[in-house]
Amino acid sequence: MIHTTLQATDGAARALHIDTPRGAVETPVFMPVGTQGTVKAMAPEDLEAVGAQIILANTYHLHLRPGEDVVRRLGGLHRFMHWERPILTDSGGFQVFSLARLSRVDEDGVRFRSHLDGAALTLSPESSIAIQEALGADIMMCLDHLLALPAAAGDIAAAVARTTRWAARCKAARQGEGALFGIVQGGLDEILRRRSAEGLLETGFDGMAIGGLSVGEEKAAMHDTVAFTAPLLPEGQPRYLMGAGEPEDLLQAVGAGVDMFDCVLPTRNARNGTLYTRAGRVNIKQARHRDDPAPLDADCPCPACRHYARAYLHHLFRAGEILSMRLNTYHNLHFYLALLREARAAVRAGRFAAFAREFLARFANDRH
Amino acid sequence: MIHTTLQATDGAARALHIDTPRGAVETPVFMPVGTQGTVKAMAPEDLEAVGAQIILANTYHLHLRPGEDVVRRLGGLHRFMHWERPILTDSGGFQVFSLARLSRVDEDGVRFRSHLDGAALTLSPESSIAIQEALGADIMMCLDHLLALPAAAGDIAAAVARTTRWAARCKAARQGEGALFGIVQGGLDEILRRRSAEGLLETGFDGMAIGGLSVGEEKAAMHDTVAFTAPLLPEGQPRYLMGAGEPEDLLQAVGAGVDMFDCVLPTRNARNGTLYTRAGRVNIKQARHRDDPAPLDADCPCPACRHYARAYLHHLFRAGEILSMRLNTYHNLHFYLALLREARAAVRAGRFAAFAREFLARFANDRH
Repeated sequence: MIHTTLQATDGAARALHIDTPRGAVETPVFMPVGTQGTVKAMAPEDLEAVGAQIILANTYHLHLRPGEDVVRRLGGLHRFMHWERPILTDSGGFQVFSLARLSRVDEDGVRFRSHLDGAALTLSPESSIAIQEALGADIMMCLDHLLALPAAAGDIAAAVARTTRWAARCKAARQGEGALFGIVQGGLDEILRRRSAEGLLETGFDGMAIGGLSVGEEKAAMHDTVAFTAPLLPEGQPRYLMGAGEPEDLLQAVGAGVDMFDCVLPTRNARNGTLYTRAGRVNIKQARHRDDPAPLDADCPCPACRHYARAYLHHLFRAGEILSMRLNTYHNLHFYLALLREARAAVRAGRFAAFAREFLARFANDRH
Repeated sequence: MIHTTLQATDGAARALHIDTPRGAVETPVFMPVGTQGTVKAMAPEDLEAVGAQIILANTYHLHLRPGEDVVRRLGGLHRFMHWERPILTDSGGFQVFSLARLSRVDEDGVRFRSHLDGAALTLSPESSIAIQEALGADIMMCLDHLLALPAAAGDIAAAVARTTRWAARCKAARQGEGALFGIVQGGLDEILRRRSAEGLLETGFDGMAIGGLSVGEEKAAMHDTVAFTAPLLPEGQPRYLMGAGEPEDLLQAVGAGVDMFDCVLPTRNARNGTLYTRAGRVNIKQARHRDDPAPLDADCPCPACRHYARAYLHHLFRAGEILSMRLNTYHNLHFYLALLREARAAVRAGRFAAFAREFLARFANDRH
């Protein structure tokens, strides 16, 4: 279980201290995504070096391969992947929705076919919790009913109601000590979001997530939805915005009172050559970096910036070298984690709004 | 330039201390291959950690991309790739022979088309040295005339004669301080190998390589050729067997008096899932590793063996994760470098033959 302390507030923004059996998590916090039991291109030592406090692992992927029974027999996911700090597992529902061939959602759960071998599988609130417990998650997520946006209001309302019922089943299914977070659904509709939050709070969880965003809606609509949903959630619990996003999105959400984030963008973009610097995004593929002796970001202390020229990072990317993915990923994760550490310091100093404004003014300069 | 001291002999086996402007190289030594300005899946810090004293870089690849002018403007290859220890560059001839579309070899040099974009290019003894000097190599190799084996005796003899003439042109072309090694050719023929060595020794180099092997001949023929060629080379200079090989090949060659080695096998095999342990080769892809909690090699202190189960290495490989290539490469390079460090210690202790016998008896057990 976890114990959450609200350390500071600054407007709606907050700084939490979350105690877990595997150490503390201080928020706002970014969680690198370890899809298949590893954060792509990183070793656990790298994650510690960039200051990762907690990582996310994907229940769907690990259920398919190697299977939670293998992981459990090998001592749990922490031992399997040599990561001793906290792990949050998702429910598996999002990958069923986005990767698998979905065959049916009904009250029992979700039937789907594996994207790896086409095997017919099911995921229910109960089996999702059983898998997450077998993996040894420190924080588990309830299985929710996802919809692509836009969707009809009636469909969204039905998904909210089902998500509420499934969440209660998830809580009832829990047997171990892992914390469990509920997930607020409801699309972009404030009334449905409120209904979802209230239904979940009747059951009661250790933390609350905002789900169903970053699925195709406009940025402004996402920001509005975060802004009106975050205040619906308990002040004394962590609030987690699932799957978002760009640095601008994170700062907006921190300002709205969100504490936890995960997103594949820093790692996926790294592998595609899009790198984050204080002065904006850099596409290292571009020919103008071919001869450039300057570091990627002169203010960044990460190895990619301390030891190499942009010309070398460009060369590694063009040559398809593995070191390209590693240096780029290290840099982008360092950027995201440092951004949220600084956001936390700003909240504690009562100057978050100024911090966010100054960061965004410099970062908006996208021509590097 | 380099300064070579013969520290110990044990039968034909030797231990050298080679001083270079970028630090010492103690032999027998294995040189990891950094094809495109990086050893695949490794960072320079990893190479230092596994004890690499010197690495090899490929003139052909770096000439094509990013080009030696870019590297020179950025301060040379050492600075470009953040590696401060010695670098040996090959002549480019082997990749022209194996990768490029070869259009013609004549007395001037080699005309070929780039395997990247089909551009028509030439490589001559003079341009090979100019490229290697622009890269900033500590040890350069002469351009040689390569033949696939088997070849007609007359063709081999002609290639030997041309290699001798080209080597003299390479030496004359040298302008900087880099050491220059000659390359003995001559196929599997002792008379031609002797003629090649004698021709090169008339010109005189800083070290001598045995080339033209590991190109399709039988293992025993390669071993025989190494055994009769090594004694033809100056005792006071490094002897380098190019492009070989498996651990058994290296020990055989050390026993014949060879000092330096490079090969893509440990790194390429790592990426293909073939791993070296004291008890033999392990194919980590195999299903029997799926549940195995044991380390890859309980006696190995590398991170892949200290922190992870075989089941995890198996999972990473099956999932196609980047960390698989990294851990596997680290392990295999650690294995090769430790093997040659131990061979050196055995030579200095006067027990190389026993060391090699004991190693091979255990390593021959290939069923892990």
